[in-house]
Amino acid sequence: MQRFINNPDEVVEDTVKGFVKAHSGTVRLAENPRVVVAKNAPQAGKVGVITGGGSGHEPAFIGYAGKNMLDAVAVGELFSSPTAKSFYDAVREANGGRGVICLYGNYAGDNMNVKMAIKLAAKDGIEVATVVANDDVCSAPPEEREKRRGVAGEIFMWKIGSAKASTGASLEEVRAISQRVIDNCRSVGIGLGPCTLPAVGHPNFKIEPGTMEVGIGHHGEPGVRVEPLKTAEEIAKTMSQIVLDDHNLAAGTEVAVLVSGLGATPVNELYILNDTIETQITTRGLKIYKTYVGNYFTSLEMVGATLTVLALDDEMKELLDVEVHCTTLL
Amino acid sequence: MQRFINNPDEVVEDTVKGFVKAHSGTVRLAENPRVVVAKNAPQAGKVGVITGGGSGHEPAFIGYAGKNMLDAVAVGELFSSPTAKSFYDAVREANGGRGVICLYGNYAGDNMNVKMAIKLAAKDGIEVATVVANDDVCSAPPEEREKRRGVAGEIFMWKIGSAKASTGASLEEVRAISQRVIDNCRSVGIGLGPCTLPAVGHPNFKIEPGTMEVGIGHHGEPGVRVEPLKTAEEIAKTMSQIVLDDHNLAAGTEVAVLVSGLGATPVNELYILNDTIETQITTRGLKIYKTYVGNYFTSLEMVGATLTVLALDDEMKELLDVEVHCTTLL
Repeated sequence: MQRFINNPDEVVEDTVKGFVKAHSGTVRLAENPRVVVAKNAPQAGKVGVITGGGSGHEPAFIGYAGKNMLDAVAVGELFSSPTAKSFYDAVREANGGRGVICLYGNYAGDNMNVKMAIKLAAKDGIEVATVVANDDVCSAPPEEREKRRGVAGEIFMWKIGSAKASTGASLEEVRAISQRVIDNCRSVGIGLGPCTLPAVGHPNFKIEPGTMEVGIGHHGEPGVRVEPLKTAEEIAKTMSQIVLDDHNLAAGTEVAVLVSGLGATPVNELYILNDTIETQITTRGLKIYKTYVGNYFTSLEMVGATLTVLALDDEMKELLDVEVHCTTLL
Repeated sequence: MQRFINNPDEVVEDTVKGFVKAHSGTVRLAENPRVVVAKNAPQAGKVGVITGGGSGHEPAFIGYAGKNMLDAVAVGELFSSPTAKSFYDAVREANGGRGVICLYGNYAGDNMNVKMAIKLAAKDGIEVATVVANDDVCSAPPEEREKRRGVAGEIFMWKIGSAKASTGASLEEVRAISQRVIDNCRSVGIGLGPCTLPAVGHPNFKIEPGTMEVGIGHHGEPGVRVEPLKTAEEIAKTMSQIVLDDHNLAAGTEVAVLVSGLGATPVNELYILNDTIETQITTRGLKIYKTYVGNYFTSLEMVGATLTVLALDDEMKELLDVEVHCTTLL
């Protein structure tokens, strides 16, 4: 493994330490070293907004803590859910007395641990609402949307949900718009190369050279099909088609677009994809309000990219434009 | 090659198109499609600030155009200097009537083409000053500093030089502080894996698995030595030592730190490096004013990282804090 690591079992420990040192003006570590907290949290009278998830997706999830963004983030081991205790501690760190919302992705471990954290928080008298992201189109058919995984669409949910909370909105108002955002999100991933958990030492799935996996998950979950590797233009068309066909948006709808690398794909290739993606979107009569391109939600050193399209309404546009101070460019 | 590309000869063309589409609120394309211009440039009465360089280093160089940042960027082919015409067109796009400064890196092609662009601009009556970055410690000994290459230290030069220009400073004042910044910068690169120019189809240099190249350049230029691959902690110590020994700063000096990935190294590993780097820096009695970690200056899909340390003075600190709107988080 050509990697910058120390003890393979301490990758998360070392990552979080280096992160908090780099960004001590924006975040701090909680007493629980698996909880990263925005420097200005908790804010009295504001709904607290938290998330949590497995590590290895950096800058997700810790890179989205900050002012007008997430108040606290529970940190799991690589590709593993944070513990119930960490979710609970994140709730406590974010609690400003008006309830806390946990905006997280649809994975079995996270679902279970968030549920337990809610029970613990209830004993403290803290009300916790949740929205579960399920934007990954290829992980289940439309009629079973509740089974779909949450992927990069979570970033839009965090940004807009957090901005809503910063306006002084109620827990129910923050929940409602966060749910609307994820309902309006669709994502797809394309894998060109696998990733390796350092403690394992070899990839836990395969992508043969000359092929690509369409609809791959953030941890290498198999997609809908393996195809011969195509040009960026053809791949971008496939990604756009999967996302937009599932979306079925009326002409004139405004959208936000997120093209994220999976860790080892260089930034210039994401722009090459974006060139065709934007053409595909506008050709369908949709209007692009804002585009984000970069390593926003990764999977260790996986080679690949994801596309997320969010259908916007006026309120979402306004909240998407709220200025934030976290450690990722939004 | 597991890559998102179309015609290998059109990688730059496609990248720039996708970039300008994504960020049309921040940048525009000049009539010359190899010049990216900040949306608000030129500004009458402001010194214009430009750079230029080969592509494949994204977000450098185009990702640093924007408000209070670079006014224009000349874009070269992959790892090749922009043409003299492109540098000249960038000068014209940035010209607000008070002269233009070109802040670029020390490579033969860039030196030659910038010199020619200056002659062309002189015919138009535009005065062009230059500062040539030479922050890469391992590319020449201290007594031949003028031979050193320019690498990620350029980002500090761009940010502080551009901020100075935005205060209404004169060409000479902008030149002087930009020169001071690069004089106060030291960088080093560690390579764990090579990169491939798409039109070539195979890596143009080798890094054997289990080894690392210490002091490698941004295009795979050989470093000072090949060593067995070590732990992140040991690598970070080596990087810090190379940079700080060459710097020789007095205890109490405040510094800005930049840890950049080279393209295919995941963000979490950069934070692992930063953990030790910050300890190394503070152990020497230096104070860290600000830290940047991410893919700031890359080399296609090269595996590796660079460290840049800038010794700050009060004016630099103030200018480093000026808010900017470009497409990279600064």
